[in-house]
Formats: sequence, structure tokens, C-alpha cells
Amino acid sequence: MSFPVGLSRVVEPAGVLPQAAWRLDPRPQLGADEVRIRVERLNLDAASFRQLAEKHGGDGAAVRAEVLEIVGTRGKMHNPVTGSGGMLIGTVDEVGPESPLPVKVGDRVATLVSLTLTPLAITDGLAGWDGRSEQVPAQGHAILFGRSVVAVLPDDMPGELALAVFDVCGAPALTDRVVRGHAANGPVSVAVLGGAGKSGSLALTAARLAGARTVGVVVSEAERDTLTAAGLADEVAIADARNPVAVSSAVAQALGGPATVTVVCVDVPGCEHGAILATANGGTVIFFSMATSFSAAALGAEGLAADVTMLVGNGYVPGHAEFAVDLVRRSPAVRALFEARVAGH
Amino acid sequence: MSFPVGLSRVVEPAGVLPQAAWRLDPRPQLGADEVRIRVERLNLDAASFRQLAEKHGGDGAAVRAEVLEIVGTRGKMHNPVTGSGGMLIGTVDEVGPESPLPVKVGDRVATLVSLTLTPLAITDGLAGWDGRSEQVPAQGHAILFGRSVVAVLPDDMPGELALAVFDVCGAPALTDRVVRGHAANGPVSVAVLGGAGKSGSLALTAARLAGARTVGVVVSEAERDTLTAAGLADEVAIADARNPVAVSSAVAQALGGPATVTVVCVDVPGCEHGAILATANGGTVIFFSMATSFSAAALGAEGLAADVTMLVGNGYVPGHAEFAVDLVRRSPAVRALFEARVAGH
Repeated sequence: MSFPVGLSRVVEPAGVLPQAAWRLDPRPQLGADEVRIRVERLNLDAASFRQLAEKHGGDGAAVRAEVLEIVGTRGKMHNPVTGSGGMLIGTVDEVGPESPLPVKVGDRVATLVSLTLTPLAITDGLAGWDGRSEQVPAQGHAILFGRSVVAVLPDDMPGELALAVFDVCGAPALTDRVVRGHAANGPVSVAVLGGAGKSGSLALTAARLAGARTVGVVVSEAERDTLTAAGLADEVAIADARNPVAVSSAVAQALGGPATVTVVCVDVPGCEHGAILATANGGTVIFFSMATSFSAAALGAEGLAADVTMLVGNGYVPGHAEFAVDLVRRSPAVRALFEARVAGH
Repeated sequence: MSFPVGLSRVVEPAGVLPQAAWRLDPRPQLGADEVRIRVERLNLDAASFRQLAEKHGGDGAAVRAEVLEIVGTRGKMHNPVTGSGGMLIGTVDEVGPESPLPVKVGDRVATLVSLTLTPLAITDGLAGWDGRSEQVPAQGHAILFGRSVVAVLPDDMPGELALAVFDVCGAPALTDRVVRGHAANGPVSVAVLGGAGKSGSLALTAARLAGARTVGVVVSEAERDTLTAAGLADEVAIADARNPVAVSSAVAQALGGPATVTVVCVDVPGCEHGAILATANGGTVIFFSMATSFSAAALGAEGLAADVTMLVGNGYVPGHAEFAVDLVRRSPAVRALFEARVAGH
């Protein structure tokens, strides 16, 4: 068995995989199965950026300094508080002779593995970033391993837009798979908590295209109006996803009963019990938020005597990037939502 | 929609479910759908007991004092560090007029919902416990809600044994369900990390009875000898479950390739990546350990480009208690392992 997963890049502690490591070696010299990317832009994970922005009270210069500090110390953009990273965009600079990745020098690509395990060096001090957005213009280099996932950017959309889509492309692909699995047993209803966000709007779109009746649950009237205007869900409800009674009541009212599938796309802690209560017996909860607590989910379902299947939202499903890009092509409303997010709204 | 889930017992913060609450009210007066249990014995969650024992360097009196402090402060045995609890055994003392639970006054029962959401008062200072075992003789009372899960103790096994079985009864039931789901697509192989433990030995037994070829992965030669002598697995391998390369190599060697289903029953942090690497594409990882990190699992699978379904081990599957008791009846070797654990080995 071979493990083309970057073990030679792990500095500390020795012997763990890159994601678990405290520090990676981002040296530019390539191993035989590695690829070096010339970095153009980082896209920070939403939970990570929110934590940094809140910690520094919106002081962009302080956020920028902390990102530089993290990358300089750890050799990767791995937020030690949230445990999350993000992804990046760039150009293939060199390809090791034994790399299995389907890229060549000069390809403009996005990395679809987390920044938490991607060796990264930044050389421009992030001079082009004001610290106020998840999208970070950056110069430097990053390293991909043999078993990394990388996508060549589509010709028909701007890089920033494609990056924002790729960042959450696991959500619609897994939602599609789960909805189609349940569809063999009858009509499927889907509740998406955080339906107006990036992963949420794509999950809603995937669920509807897979034949489900959908409700998007959002936190504010502004989000409700946005999602209603976009027409991405059959129903839109307002509820605080952290309030189990409120969110499960809202879902039951919108769908006429609990959901077959509940998708959690809200990047705040405490949404586990509401998602469980909102889901029918025999149904499935997919947790995509990195703020999910494993023990709250496990003990919550047990404590509520809820016979629901609970999935850790795996960011990798074969073909996920192409699937998500296709959704954005097919739905102008989704594309408009993403363009607005990329523009900073 | 009604929520018979104990909302009236939540003191702080208001409006959350009992498991999420910092403090519950363990008053003995019952609501209409509640049941009061006269407590006989607590069974602490393995991760919780281990944390307390390690914190106090094996000083039983200090462990006892901290358990009393937690229950006195929180109104429940909810370890604030591990987030886990356990379960209890006792006798039904009073049944509210609207309780849907299938119990009557005088029934000797085990609660199958976590202690993290069960209002509890202790009245004997745990005088009968030396603080050196997960099994805690105790006097006091506990409260069950309408949607709690409770099982009347079987006549043919001691209460301590039944409690130890019930405590992990979600693991074999969910393992059985997942293995049977995969069996439609061909032969199934199952790796159980921590196969010599309580949940692990039951998961191995359930997997084999469901038709799978099995390997139990254990951490020491002593555990290997125990599990081999018990004959519960087709293969037994030694590997540190926290070392992804070691554990996945051991599983591949024992089974001739990665496992269709990997079950994580090791109550230490850091087992996520090994479980993912040990599992075949299209396979399933079931995380039963409360030490599981959600983000390590989600980002690990993404970073390893692993198309595996990852399940949060839901402690509730309909019929799980009867299923686990039946496994113990059918397998004298499992019963012997549990009896040894209960006796303190």
C-alpha cells in the first residue's frame, strides 16, 4: 500500500498526516509525485474568517497580520481555533515526474483539498488584501500531493466565482446522492439550514433538481427576501438554527411534517439538535458546517430517541467540482447569489 | 408538534434542550409525562471516566469528589471536558399519568439516554464507590421524559452486566444495519478499531453474524491475546489507531485490502484519519467514539480524496437494547469479555 499523502512534508509532530500536523515544510523543491502551484488567491473557510474577524473586531490589518503569522508558523493556512482552512487558486508551476494529477504546467487551477493540509508559503505580505473578505489575493507557492484533488478552472466564469463554487462543491454533490438514495422509498422533502449561503443555496438547488420538495431556513428577513426572490426553494422560513424548537417547528410548518433530509450549512455552533428534531424517523441529517460538535450530534440523537442517519459532510465526492459548476451554469439565480457574495455582500 | 423532551427541566441557559444545558433542575416532583427512577448504579462513559482518572492521577477519592461536584452543580452527570455522560440503573419509583414509556412502578430498568441530559440528584455522597471504576453504586433519583428510552432489565443476567451491554448497544445495532446495507453489493469486510473493548467486541460480533469477514484492531499484545482467545474476529491485528499509516496497513494486510466498513470504538482522540485510510472507496466509517473530532473527519476525508460515507454513531436505533442482549446471549465469549470488564479487568 502506498500513501501519496504528503508524509514527507510533515515537520511536527512526526508521523502524522499533513492535516493533523502542527507544522508542514513548504519548501518549493518537489518530490516525484508532487505539484507546485504559483498562488494567485486564497479563499478562507467561512468559519475561519468569521472567527478572525470577530477576534479582531473587524480590524482588517490585524486579521491580515494573524493570517501571515499562522502561515509563517505552521507552513499552511490552518486556523488553530476553528481547525479549518479554505482553498486556493493559482497556476501550475512545476509537475513532478510521477504525479498522477491531471494537470500540466501553465494550467490555471483551484485546489480542492483543504488549506489545512496544503504546504503554503506567502511572499508578498498579503499586500493586496485589506483583511475584510474571505477572498485573499496572495503571492507565493503551494504544494499538492499525489492524492490531492485539483480542478482546472472553467473558461466561462471568473476565477473568484469558480473558487467560491469549488469551496463548497461537496455539499451539492452529497445532497444529490442522499436525496436520490431516499427517493427509492417515496417522495423526499429537504430542509436546508442556512439556505441563503454558498453551500446552502447549492444544496437547495441540487435537492430540487433531484426531485425533492425543499425549504430553506434562514436567520433574517433580509435573507428570506433574498432567497425568496432567487426562487431557489419551494418554501422559505425564518428561524434561529440554534433553537431546536423554533427550527423544527418552522420546518414542519413549511413541509407539512419533518424533513426526509436536513442539510446543515450554518457556520455557527449549536445547530445539531434543531437539525435532528427537524428530521423524520428514518431520515438523514448531513452536517456540512465545520462548527458541528460530534458529541452534541451523537448524544443529541440518542437523547431525543431519533432514528436518523447522521453524516459527516465529506468534502470529497467524485465529480463534485464539475457537478457544482454545472448547477451554477443551469441556475442563473445561484450564479447571481455567488456573484454577490464574491463582490462582498 | 409537541416536544416531550424535558424543556421544563432546563435551568440555564433557558430555551435549549437538556443535553445542551449547563444546568438542569432535578426536582423529584414529576410533570405529567415524566418518570422518576430510584437510582441504584451509574455507569460512566469510558471517555469521561478516563479523563477524570487521568486528571487525578488515579486518586479515587478525588475522582469521586469531582463527580459529586459535577452532579451537584449541573443537576446531571455531564463531564464538561469530554462532553459525555453514561447511563444508570434503578427502579421505577413513580410514573406520571401521561407518560408514554412502557414501564410501571417497581420495574428494574436501565436508562438508555445519556446522563448528559438526565436530571439527577445523588443523596449518599457516593459512599459506596471507590472512584476507581466506571461502575458507580449510588443512591438518589433521576428523571425520564416522554421521549426518553428505557429498558426493563433482563432476568437472565446481573444488572451490572446488562448495564454495561446497554451502554454501548447502539454500536452493534448500527453496525448490523450498515453491514447489511453493503451486503447487497457483494462480500463485506469489517475492521473494528478497538475490537477488544465493550462496543468493539459487540460490533465485531454483530458484523460477523451479518455475514462479514472481520478484523479486530487492538493496541497491545495483551488485547490481541484476549481477542484471539475469544475468537470474536477472523483476524486480529495490533496497531495504534492514532497512526493512520500503521492502522491502514494493518487492516489491508489482515483483510487483503481496505475494509468495506470501519467501525471506530477507540475512546482516544486522533483516530479519524486512520479509519478513513483503512476504508475502501465507496465504503463506510462509523464513528462511535466520543473523542471523534468532526472537523478532523470532514477535512481528513477531503484531504485524502476518500469517497467514504462517514456516520456519526447514533446511540439510538430502534430495538438496539434487545439486539445487544441477544448478541451476549448467543456469544458466551462476548459475555465473558463483558463480565471481565464489569469485574474491573
